Amino acid sequence: MHTATAEALSNIAFIKYWGNRDQTLRLPSNASLSMNLAGLKTVTTVAFDPSLPGPDALTLNGHPTTGAALARVTRHLDLVRAAAGLSARAVVTSHNTFPSGAGIASSASGFAALTVAAARAAGLALNEVDLSVLARRGSGSASRSIPAGFTEWLAGEQPSGEDSYARTIAPPEHWALTDVIAVLSAAHKATGSTEGHGLADTSPFQAARVADAPRRLSLCRTALLARDFSAFSEIVEEDAVAMHAVMMTSRPPLFYWQPLTIAVIQAVPVWRAEGLPVCFTIDAGPNVHCLTPTEHAPEVERRLRALGVPDVLAAAPGGPARIIA
Amino acid sequence: MHTATAEALSNIAFIKYWGNRDQTLRLPSNASLSMNLAGLKTVTTVAFDPSLPGPDALTLNGHPTTGAALARVTRHLDLVRAAAGLSARAVVTSHNTFPSGAGIASSASGFAALTVAAARAAGLALNEVDLSVLARRGSGSASRSIPAGFTEWLAGEQPSGEDSYARTIAPPEHWALTDVIAVLSAAHKATGSTEGHGLADTSPFQAARVADAPRRLSLCRTALLARDFSAFSEIVEEDAVAMHAVMMTSRPPLFYWQPLTIAVIQAVPVWRAEGLPVCFTIDAGPNVHCLTPTEHAPEVERRLRALGVPDVLAAAPGGPARIIA
Repeated sequence: MHTATAEALSNIAFIKYWGNRDQTLRLPSNASLSMNLAGLKTVTTVAFDPSLPGPDALTLNGHPTTGAALARVTRHLDLVRAAAGLSARAVVTSHNTFPSGAGIASSASGFAALTVAAARAAGLALNEVDLSVLARRGSGSASRSIPAGFTEWLAGEQPSGEDSYARTIAPPEHWALTDVIAVLSAAHKATGSTEGHGLADTSPFQAARVADAPRRLSLCRTALLARDFSAFSEIVEEDAVAMHAVMMTSRPPLFYWQPLTIAVIQAVPVWRAEGLPVCFTIDAGPNVHCLTPTEHAPEVERRLRALGVPDVLAAAPGGPARIIA
Repeated sequence: MHTATAEALSNIAFIKYWGNRDQTLRLPSNASLSMNLAGLKTVTTVAFDPSLPGPDALTLNGHPTTGAALARVTRHLDLVRAAAGLSARAVVTSHNTFPSGAGIASSASGFAALTVAAARAAGLALNEVDLSVLARRGSGSASRSIPAGFTEWLAGEQPSGEDSYARTIAPPEHWALTDVIAVLSAAHKATGSTEGHGLADTSPFQAARVADAPRRLSLCRTALLARDFSAFSEIVEEDAVAMHAVMMTSRPPLFYWQPLTIAVIQAVPVWRAEGLPVCFTIDAGPNVHCLTPTEHAPEVERRLRALGVPDVLAAAPGGPARIIA
């Protein structure tokens, strides 16, 4: 029996991934850029046991899990088994350190941790690029949770996807930013990200969003490397709203925003104009991620709560996915 | 002294006007389609008085008005004076029958009534097309408040704008629809429509919105003429969201939505799925216009109030702009 345990962090994208040019390989329509979120972690143990009969077994946050979630894990483990020449079934135990149902995507940290643990347990010697490519197959944004700190996921050009992986563009200590997350809903997303990505091309605006993505990414990378919060704010908000504009104009339309989402995204630019350095971004859900230099995080949290935001999480830039046992 | 009094109705667009190909002549980037709103009326009296010294005088809802509002009225009257060979100054008195500050655009009804009253007072014999072309110069959507009922404003092709006017495609009695308006804010718009139209081309999505507009207008016209509420609902919501996606992605971004706006646009499609025929559209403001067959208007109003909507107005399809004295 071969076993390994890995941890990986969630990440928040500053330049968003939405839509695939190859849905099966999860090859993205555009490159993206993100920050790993310290403390918002998945810890996953994979044990390949040749003596185990039947299907893979999955325990998520203490709950034995079957159905679609297990099937997606099995498809991912099949890639690892194929690469390692293994046929053994696996026992997978995974838990998140962030509250489940807080609307924090667990697929990025989850598939990054699963990839690292399964590869080690299977005896594969994979480097960071290999691991990022493999994690991408499980969940696109998981590719960005493999390397440390601020990472860029290259769209790549090869049909095989071998050049579509994430790499660190700056280490966690490069910039003391905090992601102050306005947690607005514990409700499960009505439309999951995988299905959502498949709808991106039904929006009349996706082509223009994708065509303009290299410009936005370049501006964001430059602002990030220069720690230019003003330029960073502008492009991060622009990119997030462009993604939601595509989502809202898809067929069927995807509306992830809730009333408090609007209250926060109306307030943040006003706060910034008043001198508080903060900007917003929003993933495929109602939560608003408020990015701010760390010294301003308490003030941002105070203002969010004053708006009626029921719960707030805060995360600093975090490290890479790694083996811990 | 020559005097005339006219009334004109506000209108709600089902296929929206946003952006001009000629900002001065208010030649729109795309054709639009709307319904006049019975009861939401402006009544305007224009008196040309050769004995009056100095500038035009304007009284709006009982308040003597100068500044930008008067300057815009004077520019419009100058067009009438030029056509009539008049040099007399005018005294203009105008009032709305809908509550001011309810976020109901008054420029459509206002410039339609001003156009009809001023043309008559100046002795011009203008037909409906002439009046619609002229009203368009004051406020684009005013062109649609000249003819009766359900109207289509043709984008036109001539640089002069002579073929860019609105015409009736169905009379008011064609379809017993009610516009149940969720009045969410009495706040004045931070960015007026004239300025907003000028920003449309800064959105990366405006070109795609405009290119697709003929398809949306054709679907909407067909659904309207066939009284096919299901098809009508889908295209009306799609068109409104596409316009707001352009607004939100303009530079600077224009966010007209408020928390209750989102609450309503999340709820309406759910109500429709439950069997209540209702759809939403949103102009350049936070109010949500809920369109429904008239027999369902009380139920729509009840549900809106249950969501926390503080005030509701209802309007049926209305008649043309006309001389009343």
